Amino acid sequence: MSENRKDLENAKGKIPNQMYKRLGLGEKKYVQLLKGVSGVIGLNDPVGIVTLHRELHDGLNLKRVACPIGVLCVIFEARPEAAVQIASLALKSGNAVILKGGSEANLSNRALVSAMREALKCTDVPEDTIQLVSSRQDVHHLLKLDEYIDLVIPRGSRSLVRKIQQSTRIPVMGHADGICSVYVDEEANVETAVRVTVDSKTNYPAACNACETLLVHHKILEKALIPIGMKLKSRGVTKIHADKHTIQYLPQDITVPSKEQDFRTEFGCLEIAVKCVKSTKDAIDHINSHGSSHTDCIVTENSSTAKQFMNAVDSAGVYHNASTRFADGFRYGFGAEVGVSTNRLHARGPVGMEGLLTYKYKLSGKGHIVEEFGVGKKEYTHRDVQEEKKRDMTCMISVVLSVVVVGALCVRKMLS
Amino acid sequence: MSENRKDLENAKGKIPNQMYKRLGLGEKKYVQLLKGVSGVIGLNDPVGIVTLHRELHDGLNLKRVACPIGVLCVIFEARPEAAVQIASLALKSGNAVILKGGSEANLSNRALVSAMREALKCTDVPEDTIQLVSSRQDVHHLLKLDEYIDLVIPRGSRSLVRKIQQSTRIPVMGHADGICSVYVDEEANVETAVRVTVDSKTNYPAACNACETLLVHHKILEKALIPIGMKLKSRGVTKIHADKHTIQYLPQDITVPSKEQDFRTEFGCLEIAVKCVKSTKDAIDHINSHGSSHTDCIVTENSSTAKQFMNAVDSAGVYHNASTRFADGFRYGFGAEVGVSTNRLHARGPVGMEGLLTYKYKLSGKGHIVEEFGVGKKEYTHRDVQEEKKRDMTCMISVVLSVVVVGALCVRKMLS
Repeated sequence: MSENRKDLENAKGKIPNQMYKRLGLGEKKYVQLLKGVSGVIGLNDPVGIVTLHRELHDGLNLKRVACPIGVLCVIFEARPEAAVQIASLALKSGNAVILKGGSEANLSNRALVSAMREALKCTDVPEDTIQLVSSRQDVHHLLKLDEYIDLVIPRGSRSLVRKIQQSTRIPVMGHADGICSVYVDEEANVETAVRVTVDSKTNYPAACNACETLLVHHKILEKALIPIGMKLKSRGVTKIHADKHTIQYLPQDITVPSKEQDFRTEFGCLEIAVKCVKSTKDAIDHINSHGSSHTDCIVTENSSTAKQFMNAVDSAGVYHNASTRFADGFRYGFGAEVGVSTNRLHARGPVGMEGLLTYKYKLSGKGHIVEEFGVGKKEYTHRDVQEEKKRDMTCMISVVLSVVVVGALCVRKMLS
Repeated sequence: MSENRKDLENAKGKIPNQMYKRLGLGEKKYVQLLKGVSGVIGLNDPVGIVTLHRELHDGLNLKRVACPIGVLCVIFEARPEAAVQIASLALKSGNAVILKGGSEANLSNRALVSAMREALKCTDVPEDTIQLVSSRQDVHHLLKLDEYIDLVIPRGSRSLVRKIQQSTRIPVMGHADGICSVYVDEEANVETAVRVTVDSKTNYPAACNACETLLVHHKILEKALIPIGMKLKSRGVTKIHADKHTIQYLPQDITVPSKEQDFRTEFGCLEIAVKCVKSTKDAIDHINSHGSSHTDCIVTENSSTAKQFMNAVDSAGVYHNASTRFADGFRYGFGAEVGVSTNRLHARGPVGMEGLLTYKYKLSGKGHIVEEFGVGKKEYTHRDVQEEKKRDMTCMISVVLSVVVVGALCVRKMLS
């Protein structure tokens, strides 16, 4: 706490208010932090979970088993509790982690990491499983070590993430942009449209899952946009970038004509871009070409339109009648998150512990060799052992029922 | 067939015998090819499979749903049936695919791809879902298109794979090296050690899953190495690169002193490197530092030693008493494979249809907004719907049993 107070002292007046707030680690936040760690402790041990168990031949058994990725390097914003959350998830999933937090939180991070390393000394886990680096120069060196580091997870500004993506051969998991859209369909319930749009935009505008673009079907422009515009204004939205079809329905004092670039912009503040679309297909095309594959939402009462949108929009999260702000590891019930991925491979969307795991195939035989298999020789059985269990259960139920019925009949016969 | 005959004609005397054999597509191979396609048709549709179904709150439902990765670019050797296998897997998993086969098979590939595109015309799937490029120059251009191509899968020589890995920003899935090891533990059954080593090395020496390094525990050197060496020689092994501890036990006429580089070499032919290790830990360290994370095997009768090896060796496949040659999509029962991955992220090991899928999160609400959740407000339920089903089943079984038992008792009472 005292180190955090020093960080706060040093940062006073030098960073934006929002960032200053995040830097602070008051007692309430600290209690929450510990609660988070307890939550991770409470999760089932993910290492060793068998996701495929197949008999290839008599005595030759294949298992696909979850195992850690290896050494992670996580670069995150000046938010001290992140160091602990990330380290907990890494540890629980059997990974080693190199942490680099925002430099404004250097003292806090050093105190927290040294406390965690101290704790590791009482365990079988080497304390170097959690390491902290504090300068940008260190990160620069680390990004060259593709032989030793298996995954880089950068959180933070778009420019930071882009720069890292372009300067390393180590796989990078995360997202550079969070350009999320809400599409109000012609069959939307207007009240739902207002609620979802306003929450998506104003609940926490700096978050990557906040809405940046509002698309409205041309048949519902007037009905939906007037109340949405009023509510956005009353909730503090300072600027609306509207296309020529929508501008007339929005509060004049905060609305300006949009430029094409506005629909590719992550405002990250109380600004939003608004556009009219001719159809759901138009909305899908706009999102797939302008969005960042993060999280996009349709508001409609028509479930088949919702289905069309959710299948065709190519994003990590596709939502129906729910705020884009739900795109978060805690809200998904992952206990904690290390970040949100817009990658298409491995983990996609909010990344919890599962995203920090890979698997290996374990094959156990009794001296089995490939030469003995083939046409006219031994054949592969490819029998899934999991399925077998289910079959066993069904079988067991049948047996129990038969026994009971036969028993009842016997009892009846005996008594009659 | 006639196009393939032309390819064979053109290649005659210009390529190694092994490669010439693979280029040919005789009637027998063609029938097998069609059987393979039928096999892929028979697989369950993988798109849309729900791998997580969680209620976040009353009426707010999260599903993680399997979906295709997008556009794949697969570069493969001069082996015509590969074009059809890869295209089948891509199509079944909902992906589009750009194929580039070895140039010696250009005419065969063109005929096969045009037949597949012709077939697509009778379906709702656009024929451009399967495309063929034929020059290296084309590949060079494609590797720049990271905005449009989602995954590159190169198969073939180490230098080809390395070159592709280094020249594109598109994720690359595959392996450059296949340096697989067999470790003969002090508690190995010698007969098993001979079988597994010989099959791993000689069954198909050009394959990536063939054994290149043999590690032998110092306590079993004489007992194991003499029969292994003799059998390797009788099966045509032409050269053994042996360290100073093992050289005396191996056939002198084909054995030479090893250099350090031999233990980092994928011979790809009937050569093998042999080394003595002091312990299982030594073997593990050697494999983790010299291997290529492909497939490695321990031969031992001690199951706890096997467990130690399989947990600590950091490879896509870790085997116990079974030939490394089993590392293959067909043998694993995946129906077909697009390649073997030594990546640590996404798919690892032999890659079948599952490796060509990603997922998206679908969230359906009734106007749910984040603002209404939090301390003293709505709380997340995080109830897994899958688990609920299992509970329902247990519940159902109990109810059925109770009814039957009560029924039996009633019958008894009535009859008495």
